[in-house]
Amino acid sequence: MIMKKLSLLLLLAVATSLSLIGQDAPNPTLNTAIRKHGLEKSKVMDIASWMCDVYGPRLTGSPMLDKATDWAQKTLKDWGMSNVHLEAWGPFGRGWEFTHFAMHATAPNYFPIIAYPKAWSPATKGVLSGEVIYLQADDEEDLKKLKGKLKGKFVLLDTIRTLKEWMDAPAKRYTSEDLLDMANAAAPGRRPDRDFNRLGGLSFNQKLFKFIMEEEPLAVLDRGFKGDLGTVFVTGARAEEGRVQDPKAKVIPQATLSVEHYNRIFRMMQKGIPVTLSMELKANYTNPDGMEHNIIAEIPGTDLKDEVVMLGAHFDSWHTGTGATDNGAGSSVMMEAARIILETIKETGIKPRRTIRLALWTGEEQGLLGSRGYVKEHFANTSPEGTIQSIKEAEQSKISGYFNLDNGTGKIRGVYLQGNAGVSPVFRAWLDPFKDLGAATLTLQNTGGTDHQAFDAAGIPGFQFIQEPIAYSTRTHHSNMDNWDHLVEDDLKQASTIIASFVLHTAMRDEKLPRKATELKAGSN
Amino acid sequence: MIMKKLSLLLLLAVATSLSLIGQDAPNPTLNTAIRKHGLEKSKVMDIASWMCDVYGPRLTGSPMLDKATDWAQKTLKDWGMSNVHLEAWGPFGRGWEFTHFAMHATAPNYFPIIAYPKAWSPATKGVLSGEVIYLQADDEEDLKKLKGKLKGKFVLLDTIRTLKEWMDAPAKRYTSEDLLDMANAAAPGRRPDRDFNRLGGLSFNQKLFKFIMEEEPLAVLDRGFKGDLGTVFVTGARAEEGRVQDPKAKVIPQATLSVEHYNRIFRMMQKGIPVTLSMELKANYTNPDGMEHNIIAEIPGTDLKDEVVMLGAHFDSWHTGTGATDNGAGSSVMMEAARIILETIKETGIKPRRTIRLALWTGEEQGLLGSRGYVKEHFANTSPEGTIQSIKEAEQSKISGYFNLDNGTGKIRGVYLQGNAGVSPVFRAWLDPFKDLGAATLTLQNTGGTDHQAFDAAGIPGFQFIQEPIAYSTRTHHSNMDNWDHLVEDDLKQASTIIASFVLHTAMRDEKLPRKATELKAGSN
Repeated sequence: MIMKKLSLLLLLAVATSLSLIGQDAPNPTLNTAIRKHGLEKSKVMDIASWMCDVYGPRLTGSPMLDKATDWAQKTLKDWGMSNVHLEAWGPFGRGWEFTHFAMHATAPNYFPIIAYPKAWSPATKGVLSGEVIYLQADDEEDLKKLKGKLKGKFVLLDTIRTLKEWMDAPAKRYTSEDLLDMANAAAPGRRPDRDFNRLGGLSFNQKLFKFIMEEEPLAVLDRGFKGDLGTVFVTGARAEEGRVQDPKAKVIPQATLSVEHYNRIFRMMQKGIPVTLSMELKANYTNPDGMEHNIIAEIPGTDLKDEVVMLGAHFDSWHTGTGATDNGAGSSVMMEAARIILETIKETGIKPRRTIRLALWTGEEQGLLGSRGYVKEHFANTSPEGTIQSIKEAEQSKISGYFNLDNGTGKIRGVYLQGNAGVSPVFRAWLDPFKDLGAATLTLQNTGGTDHQAFDAAGIPGFQFIQEPIAYSTRTHHSNMDNWDHLVEDDLKQASTIIASFVLHTAMRDEKLPRKATELKAGSN
Repeated sequence: MIMKKLSLLLLLAVATSLSLIGQDAPNPTLNTAIRKHGLEKSKVMDIASWMCDVYGPRLTGSPMLDKATDWAQKTLKDWGMSNVHLEAWGPFGRGWEFTHFAMHATAPNYFPIIAYPKAWSPATKGVLSGEVIYLQADDEEDLKKLKGKLKGKFVLLDTIRTLKEWMDAPAKRYTSEDLLDMANAAAPGRRPDRDFNRLGGLSFNQKLFKFIMEEEPLAVLDRGFKGDLGTVFVTGARAEEGRVQDPKAKVIPQATLSVEHYNRIFRMMQKGIPVTLSMELKANYTNPDGMEHNIIAEIPGTDLKDEVVMLGAHFDSWHTGTGATDNGAGSSVMMEAARIILETIKETGIKPRRTIRLALWTGEEQGLLGSRGYVKEHFANTSPEGTIQSIKEAEQSKISGYFNLDNGTGKIRGVYLQGNAGVSPVFRAWLDPFKDLGAATLTLQNTGGTDHQAFDAAGIPGFQFIQEPIAYSTRTHHSNMDNWDHLVEDDLKQASTIIASFVLHTAMRDEKLPRKATELKAGSN
């Protein structure tokens, strides 16, 4: 009985698989050329060096992002991409750049401090100098007692963070067990929340922060919730109220110190030893019109040229490294994938049926703003909770899928299907020729926190690849050490190659990619 | 037959062991009190915080070392140590401290650089600003062409160092295999060389360096031979000739950059993009009389009070961290061991027979200078190669042994016997009560690079303990991240406890510790 059932199942599986291979058999001519240009003649590390070493970091709204945007457009045009242009989104609000920052301990003894301004901190009036103070405050009574005592002081926001030595490797690759867990995971419920504000949940902490802002100390200092040994994780400053990008928002200088230096200061304070710091920040608010831009470039299609397949990655970064793994890696891989496709077309003479459109987003770090702006303009208006409110059918019905890369430098081990089971046999067939490169796992699971979500929310098949973690969360993601040297060449070559193949096969397919059942209803495709 | 032989061997072994236990049975009363004060009532982390957070770093010749020395003397006196005093050695030459250092990239784009001056670099005249240059020079012909081109430039000394992500843990403990290898190692031949000058071996590199010094660029920059992710390893500057401590030595500013920043600059240069840096160093040459000091403190003996047992560690450090694992750890453990002994005497009423003498050395980082000075003054004059030239018998014959700690924060796993097989059964018996703390391995091997060598060279039993490596070589030893936070509390407690026991048992023993056969001859004891 069991045998019989099993045979039937096997038969069904084989039949399904055969029929899919009919539609989705990978094209060996294309893949051979793609592998040649992606693995043997790669330019991905050179692209990344220009993007990060020369044109990094790329904080949204900063002049350096504009320079990087110019370079990317020029490079894409030089390669022969068509319709290279910018598309505005916004208003984002004011941009920011820093042109000088230094912090030193000056008493009781001198030492240079590894520290960084939080983005959108206002410039200081020259070199500030003052004692540090920690607010021992558990309730509003305590705050009253501290009134007037913060002026001229550096306020320490955090207590000591105790460190442990690294008995485990900071960088890792997925094991078979990790991947099997993903492969065997059920379809997800809702997409995970993105939390931009860790202080937000605790109401006294919010009051404490508001109190500090009103008291106008010299600056507010913290040591981040992770990082050590010279690696400092730094994102944006907080305004007293609302968004720091709002030109009217009140912000005071905020900086994150390396934990060892912060702890040292704190331990001296605990001993009753006054500690004096100096700090200087030169910074400008930029971009007065408040509008930002995504970069768009195309490879024209042929018989199905009105339909598109998109590939993209966010081009913006935080400001203390050079935005290498977040997301120079993804942007370089996507540019490289486009280049590989161009070379493959030249070499094979096979032209894509659908138009291939590359997008490099900005404003991702502030909430997927660039990709959401683009999706709103072209495909659908969605609520912040992800419900479709209105659809622009002309374009929404013409896009086959969107491929994204934004989880660091790690090579591709498979794809997050975002609950889209229908696409599973298609991607299974397309991954098959890349098993030797370690990419074989499909998971129904979601992954969150990046731009494919904007597409997914609009009823468009939008995918992020499963990537090896390497040192993304432990060392590079949003840190001062997000630098080119922490990109893994072989991994980026592998990712460019596989994505070029996925995009080109999506462009060549008879049908558009299957959509999720729920979205199909809403999407009226 | 085999069984018979084995029984005889076992019998011999038991007999030997019993006879040794007669002489060297550990005293449980002492050990119980030692464990109580060392493990349950430890002050080692507090000692280390004062030594590192408040009085660190402790570069030999720096005013901060003087402050740290004052603090240590006062602390030892407060505890009830006797005969607390300084003993001069030298002349060492000029000292040095830096009171401000900052480096920034200013063109083509701004970024703050994590960098440190090499010790004994002269102050700059205000903020220096200039382009970087890399000397492409393979021979003296090349140098001729570069003549006059370095003025006003920052010279990059190194090429790019390629990084690999950390797929292994930076910190580790010894495995049983590691320890077994040590246990089974034969007695060593000569002690390992200590190389202060990696450039020294290559004659063209020496010429290149001399050329650079003569051309007087703004500064010479390198990126160290290890370190990444914000950890920078930095030691001393090089003089054009001779020692940098020589007041007449010609030195130009030298700095070590974090490898990511150095590599980024280098990659821009390789693209033909000029890079401009700014650098400011405020630094003073100090200590005009050129003499340095070791700290000495005693716990007086009773019936054998003319004989001594010494424990020590070097107190000085490099200048960019706070000298925590090198060697605040060792110095704190040795101070703590003395404190534990004082408490044990109070609690048990048992007084040491021999005088216990604590030494905190300086000048270790420049070549074991403090301990060598002390040994020369008290025990024997040895050649730089370690041959005894003359012996001061009055003291040399009265010292039982010297115990040292200087390999970081890791707990004790055993003892390097330095080829002294005679001491093996003694230490075996004394380690026995600490098996539960993981200390059980004796190796005939040498370990080099620290102050027990000065004693060993003078025919005195001098020992360094086997310590867990933790992150000593990968992260903290001579780095900017040699900070208190990377001390491992449990390990330092364990080390203090075991050393207190070793020292006190050495002080109580009927005989002095056995000496090595070769040294016994030379030492005429």
